Amino acid sequence: MAQTIYVLNGPNLNMLGVREPAKYGSATLKDVESLCADTCKRFGLDMVFRQSNIEGELVTFIQEARINKASGIVINPAAYTHTSVAILDALTLTELPVIEIHITNVHQRESFRHHSYVSKVARGVLAGFGVQGYALAIEGLAGMIGAKER
Amino acid sequence: MAQTIYVLNGPNLNMLGVREPAKYGSATLKDVESLCADTCKRFGLDMVFRQSNIEGELVTFIQEARINKASGIVINPAAYTHTSVAILDALTLTELPVIEIHITNVHQRESFRHHSYVSKVARGVLAGFGVQGYALAIEGLAGMIGAKER
Amino acid sequence: MAQTIYVLNGPNLNMLGVREPAKYGSATLKDVESLCADTCKRFGLDMVFRQSNIEGELVTFIQEARINKASGIVINPAAYTHTSVAILDALTLTELPVIEIHITNVHQRESFRHHSYVSKVARGVLAGFGVQGYALAIEGLAGMIGAKER
Amino acid sequence: MAQTIYVLNGPNLNMLGVREPAKYGSATLKDVESLCADTCKRFGLDMVFRQSNIEGELVTFIQEARINKASGIVINPAAYTHTSVAILDALTLTELPVIEIHITNVHQRESFRHHSYVSKVARGVLAGFGVQGYALAIEGLAGMIGAKER
Amino acid sequence: MAQTIYVLNGPNLNMLGVREPAKYGSATLKDVESLCADTCKRFGLDMVFRQSNIEGELVTFIQEARINKASGIVINPAAYTHTSVAILDALTLTELPVIEIHITNVHQRESFRHHSYVSKVARGVLAGFGVQGYALAIEGLAGMIGAKER
Amino acid sequence: MAQTIYVLNGPNLNMLGVREPAKYGSATLKDVESLCADTCKRFGLDMVFRQSNIEGELVTFIQEARINKASGIVINPAAYTHTSVAILDALTLTELPVIEIHITNVHQRESFRHHSYVSKVARGVLAGFGVQGYALAIEGLAGMIGAKER
Amino acid sequence: MAQTIYVLNGPNLNMLGVREPAKYGSATLKDVESLCADTCKRFGLDMVFRQSNIEGELVTFIQEARINKASGIVINPAAYTHTSVAILDALTLTELPVIEIHITNVHQRESFRHHSYVSKVARGVLAGFGVQGYALAIEGLAGMIGAKER
Amino acid sequence: MAQTIYVLNGPNLNMLGVREPAKYGSATLKDVESLCADTCKRFGLDMVFRQSNIEGELVTFIQEARINKASGIVINPAAYTHTSVAILDALTLTELPVIEIHITNVHQRESFRHHSYVSKVARGVLAGFGVQGYALAIEGLAGMIGAKER
Amino acid sequence: MAQTIYVLNGPNLNMLGVREPAKYGSATLKDVESLCADTCKRFGLDMVFRQSNIEGELVTFIQEARINKASGIVINPAAYTHTSVAILDALTLTELPVIEIHITNVHQRESFRHHSYVSKVARGVLAGFGVQGYALAIEGLAGMIGAKER
Amino acid sequence: MAQTIYVLNGPNLNMLGVREPAKYGSATLKDVESLCADTCKRFGLDMVFRQSNIEGELVTFIQEARINKASGIVINPAAYTHTSVAILDALTLTELPVIEIHITNVHQRESFRHHSYVSKVARGVLAGFGVQGYALAIEGLAGMIGAKER
Amino acid sequence: MAQTIYVLNGPNLNMLGVREPAKYGSATLKDVESLCADTCKRFGLDMVFRQSNIEGELVTFIQEARINKASGIVINPAAYTHTSVAILDALTLTELPVIEIHITNVHQRESFRHHSYVSKVARGVLAGFGVQGYALAIEGLAGMIGAKER
Amino acid sequence: MAQTIYVLNGPNLNMLGVREPAKYGSATLKDVESLCADTCKRFGLDMVFRQSNIEGELVTFIQEARINKASGIVINPAAYTHTSVAILDALTLTELPVIEIHITNVHQRESFRHHSYVSKVARGVLAGFGVQGYALAIEGLAGMIGAKER
Repeated sequence: MAQTIYVLNGPNLNMLGVREPAKYGSATLKDVESLCADTCKRFGLDMVFRQSNIEGELVTFIQEARINKASGIVINPAAYTHTSVAILDALTLTELPVIEIHITNVHQRESFRHHSYVSKVARGVLAGFGVQGYALAIEGLAGMIGAKER
Repeated sequence: MAQTIYVLNGPNLNMLGVREPAKYGSATLKDVESLCADTCKRFGLDMVFRQSNIEGELVTFIQEARINKASGIVINPAAYTHTSVAILDALTLTELPVIEIHITNVHQRESFRHHSYVSKVARGVLAGFGVQGYALAIEGLAGMIGAKER
Repeated sequence: MAQTIYVLNGPNLNMLGVREPAKYGSATLKDVESLCADTCKRFGLDMVFRQSNIEGELVTFIQEARINKASGIVINPAAYTHTSVAILDALTLTELPVIEIHITNVHQRESFRHHSYVSKVARGVLAGFGVQGYALAIEGLAGMIGAKER
Repeated sequence: MAQTIYVLNGPNLNMLGVREPAKYGSATLKDVESLCADTCKRFGLDMVFRQSNIEGELVTFIQEARINKASGIVINPAAYTHTSVAILDALTLTELPVIEIHITNVHQRESFRHHSYVSKVARGVLAGFGVQGYALAIEGLAGMIGAKER
Repeated sequence: MAQTIYVLNGPNLNMLGVREPAKYGSATLKDVESLCADTCKRFGLDMVFRQSNIEGELVTFIQEARINKASGIVINPAAYTHTSVAILDALTLTELPVIEIHITNVHQRESFRHHSYVSKVARGVLAGFGVQGYALAIEGLAGMIGAKER
Repeated sequence: MAQTIYVLNGPNLNMLGVREPAKYGSATLKDVESLCADTCKRFGLDMVFRQSNIEGELVTFIQEARINKASGIVINPAAYTHTSVAILDALTLTELPVIEIHITNVHQRESFRHHSYVSKVARGVLAGFGVQGYALAIEGLAGMIGAKER
Repeated sequence: MAQTIYVLNGPNLNMLGVREPAKYGSATLKDVESLCADTCKRFGLDMVFRQSNIEGELVTFIQEARINKASGIVINPAAYTHTSVAILDALTLTELPVIEIHITNVHQRESFRHHSYVSKVARGVLAGFGVQGYALAIEGLAGMIGAKER
Repeated sequence: MAQTIYVLNGPNLNMLGVREPAKYGSATLKDVESLCADTCKRFGLDMVFRQSNIEGELVTFIQEARINKASGIVINPAAYTHTSVAILDALTLTELPVIEIHITNVHQRESFRHHSYVSKVARGVLAGFGVQGYALAIEGLAGMIGAKER
Repeated sequence: MAQTIYVLNGPNLNMLGVREPAKYGSATLKDVESLCADTCKRFGLDMVFRQSNIEGELVTFIQEARINKASGIVINPAAYTHTSVAILDALTLTELPVIEIHITNVHQRESFRHHSYVSKVARGVLAGFGVQGYALAIEGLAGMIGAKER
Repeated sequence: MAQTIYVLNGPNLNMLGVREPAKYGSATLKDVESLCADTCKRFGLDMVFRQSNIEGELVTFIQEARINKASGIVINPAAYTHTSVAILDALTLTELPVIEIHITNVHQRESFRHHSYVSKVARGVLAGFGVQGYALAIEGLAGMIGAKER
Repeated sequence: MAQTIYVLNGPNLNMLGVREPAKYGSATLKDVESLCADTCKRFGLDMVFRQSNIEGELVTFIQEARINKASGIVINPAAYTHTSVAILDALTLTELPVIEIHITNVHQRESFRHHSYVSKVARGVLAGFGVQGYALAIEGLAGMIGAKER
Repeated sequence: MAQTIYVLNGPNLNMLGVREPAKYGSATLKDVESLCADTCKRFGLDMVFRQSNIEGELVTFIQEARINKASGIVINPAAYTHTSVAILDALTLTELPVIEIHITNVHQRESFRHHSYVSKVARGVLAGFGVQGYALAIEGLAGMIGAKER
């Protein structure tokens, strides 16, 4: 039976393609979902793809990954990366491998974006590869959970 | 055609008039809405007036301002002033002029209230004028977007 | 007429019994609710028991405690302990006695868990007694509001 | 009898219109004086308008406001905002309502400009509205001292 | 055979009832001792109750708890909470469950009172319940060491 | 009836005259006691003069001052100036006027000597006048408690 | 021939008696001058007494003390205590004994008043004795420069 | 003509497979080189692969990448990540796309490993994917320089 | 027509030759003026040479350099280097090349002398060459403004 | 005549062999005393060996070393290493060579154990050699005071 | 078969005897090598003795100690003590007992010399015994690896 | 006989003219060497000119300056300015006058470039004069060592 992974997206990512395209690129969240679906298919993975602007909803999505026996989580926590202990706690209790992804290289932006609560629990972290980073993240997660390219 | 502005209010402002009246005055949020409506009328502006206790809902309201082609935002982010990177990001992506308002002079309160994420993107900032500050904020924003008093 | 108290629970506490049982014990939130109900009955108190993953909903529950003329609040703010000024503000405006409870001794965990916004307004603070701490907290609150054991 | 207010200006504001016009605008201090005079007239206020590059002279002007029984002070302390305890002490001893104004949003400039000694005593604070901010400040002060628009 | 617990009190607690009664209440240390004795009796525990102004004597009392095979320690380290590494070390070497108690909510006092060395080793921590907190602390410790109410 | 004041001396002051004479002078603690006795006589004051190396004994001396209804305290806390919260608490509970004295100008020594807990409660502070400072301190205290020179 | 000392006063001290009398007392700067003159006479000293609101004028007064071969300086730098390196440098170059005096105990006020540049060069420091502190300061300086009471 | 990329390795990576295998895995640097070679071949890239324990030699290798007109750099700076401004400067002057890779998630190790000078210039950053991370890094770089999988 | 440069000197430099000659040398400000005049003559430059103890006067001199269409400024801000935002703002608005000079190597003195506001705007900075540094500074400025040695 | 050295031991060292044997080893303080006595004999030294839990008693022992004309001090200040300015002051006034010894490598424990007041005065410092370190310390001190092995 | 130890020396130690002899003594590195050889012989140990000014070469020497199956390392990292994570990593991967030695007491020098990366991995640390410290270090290491004096 | 000076250059300066020409200018290191040679000739000085990317080689060059009895050192430590204690130690042991030069004004770049270890030992420091700064540095050093222009 196919393994399932969750791909979760934090606040303002619903505006992708609109928000500062010079920084984030012109791809929309719809495009990201397609790219992720394609990559998952390459590794025989099922995918749940979500976005929310609300911290507590993201907490609930993460808990759901555990309840539904998912195999791993790729998360772009966006602004909540830097402020959310609740998301850190939710990720910890899933006991799943977590990949943290950022579209831009956050280390080159304001200093309050250099600290990540999520990195304390993420197995892998990846930033600055643009939208392509989602594909790399899934590929990396696939390696960790033993899903082979077909 | 009339320009529209958004007047947004953060957590606990629904309790205005109840919460520590010695500090915040006895006017209710209803009263604030009337004052804002009157001021907007003076400048020929349409107004959308909102309040939420939920950070992510405020993010959504802000995105809506962009989608609905509003001309500017007056925001009292209340407690989220000091903790919300998500609201900062949302305001930034609207590319609209933003006025940040506080009813009290936050610089005379606890030190964790001296830092504001919103000030990093706000064009104008204003604190300590009580409820009257909303009228001044709209007046200031009107000046920035070329709306003349009638 | 019986006095009412609110027992409020923050993010991830809905996963109690599942989340790191070695640290948090095997009791579920359901079990905690029963324990609290029993303790309230001993002191002739009515109880409202709530949980939410969403910061702003917790703010609304707290406001409700004031509107419904509750006599006090026991709150386990979980991750929002460390990050939520909005909850601090909501608790302050209720002008009710507040007891802050943590299941584990947060002072022995990561340093970002040593700081609590809620402690600035809580009348009593209590950590590390496991789930039994809820009973102690209600007992302590009962003493503050003059509810005698029957 | 008309109430008097003091409008005080700190170092380098005599160069307004010359200094970095992209940041401060092209209006001169003369223009600001006219704008202030007009606004005062709208509220039936007398005005004393001063500028100095010397910290101690500003201290003396502030003391003078008290000696001459002025009703309030609008001050743009410019660079002394961030370094002058002497001006803070002088404003405190007047026991008058004080409005602090900055032409630009100081929170978006170097970090040493984020701290203000004057904010510790100012009743209202306002930044980023350009030269128009002087009019808003006087209007706000008028509200505080009960001077009605005519 | 009955288990024994130590209840230890740090500097200035011999002045209880005298020191700032508005903050600490009017009960004396004698009263606290009675309250503790009563609570211990409820749980069938023997008690050793001590106070000293001298850091090193408190260290010796703690060591004695181990030598005499006590089952646990309730300690109000008072001022030494914030400065005594020696007491921390002594508590650590006993390998006993330790409950740290403060009469007032130390988190609402000066910032140097927010840090506790003792919390690094205490199993439970409790502050702000006034003198009643001693009873809660013993009750909590009883739960940890399996002493049942009779 | 004559008023009594306490003159208290902290650790290592029993070595005065021996310890780094270039810094502290050649007068012994005996000499200091005589100087203090003479100054007290000039103002008709009785004096209790004490020294201890033990923090807790100093705490006890301070408590004694209150119990014996002394009128004020002159204290040279020496090394405990910088580390003793216990002495701060003891001084606070006496509710007596306190003068803090240091023989050398502590602000010109190592930076850890720049912070004083005792200054938080002292009515007057005085440093750098050598042994003569004791006479000035008593004189200053005399003024505060209404003892006139004879 | 009589030795001369300088008694220098910083910003806002010209308002003494007017400024927050509860904190600074009701004596005016005129009264302080008389008190100082009387004390100087007791020790056979000539006195130069000055006040300025301007940092640079105080620098010039201090240089003048050296040029006129004064024997010592008593200075109340007021707000410049905390911000003026220029006054520190001027005092250093005089190579004269300096006594720093504050009317209130600055250590009990805002934290930015706890740091003093002047203390780095002052031989004696004294705070919290009210206006009487000027007399103590002159007395202490007299002792340092060998001026005997007559 | 094929594009060339540089894969550079910092100090102690020559001991890979030997050094704490529980943390770094059992693959040797030789194995890493093969994996990189294979990945480059997939994208039609030529590769230069280097390791040095000496900071200055790494600087020279980086300069060489520019001189030899390479298309990009993948670098695992190991310990120099946290201390080398020289490597940062060298990478900056190449004006090439840089990918920074770490085998472990450095954010979960000692805090001095959380800061990276190299991240200030790297286009993409990636940590915690073990040795597989080298393949992802090359794949990501290939995407940036337009090298298609064959 | 000859270009003009301003050579400006901050507080206490009027005491040069008197102030700590071991540190600053025995040359007086008169001597410095001659040295500067000679160097200017070598490069065909006119010179305005000023000193003031008053921060605000230095601000005015700097503004004057702009008004009089000077070609550059050499400034030794002395103590105001470390504390004056007003001088920084004045130098910025001139839009002229600025050379900052210190007679001693300030980096080897107290740590509060290591920070310079003026360095944020100075094109060149130079310290520790003694009085000869003035000649080097003018020579360096001459190079920047294209004034050739004759 | 034989030279005497003092070997002093701070709080909790009387529990040696009991306290965390995995960290401190199984030797008791008695064993340490024998080892020290043997080493002293090898170098023809007399020894005074002391332990106290009380900071002030250690201060007194140190003072005694000077009074009794000892030749040097070996001290394991244990927990007071990090907090006792009083011991630092006492050691300084003896003017004797001091060796500071710790049984464990304190630099590998909690960060508050990395700072030592005693190191400011110690001639030699030594940590992590277990109980054997006492012998090395005496040997090192012997070299400093010219005591030859027999 | 004899065990081998490595004695490694960091930058500038090749200048021993030349560099500030008042601080480091007049012995040369040659003399240190002889002293170490003699001490090793006493314990039947073979020795490899090295010095380098280059951080990366020291890394290579340390790796070599592991490859050659040495039994322990004595290292004086000199300036690299404070800056080299690479040396820390190299020492960690050897899994050998490490003794860190400094000729002077680094805790009494500039504050940047108080922090040591090497101490995080060293089993024993020793400073301030001059050149004799090398002998003590080898003696201490011998004890750890079971090499007996002959 | 002619005096010799060393002109030393740190990492990446071999790329001068290539590296960010907008910031560093188009002159190559070859050009700098010629400029230095010309300036030395003007003052009758011999010159040794070196560059290395390796910290330890720069240490060795500096030691060589002492061994070869050079009269002074001009050094542009580039990136090692901010990180190398080893270079600081090497410069200190030469006991020669040192001039530190930077091509750009480092105070206007990233904050980690504001701190210099080399400035602790340099007699003169100079930044921001571009390549011409080398000539000024040699001229300044010539003045210090008594080499006159010919």
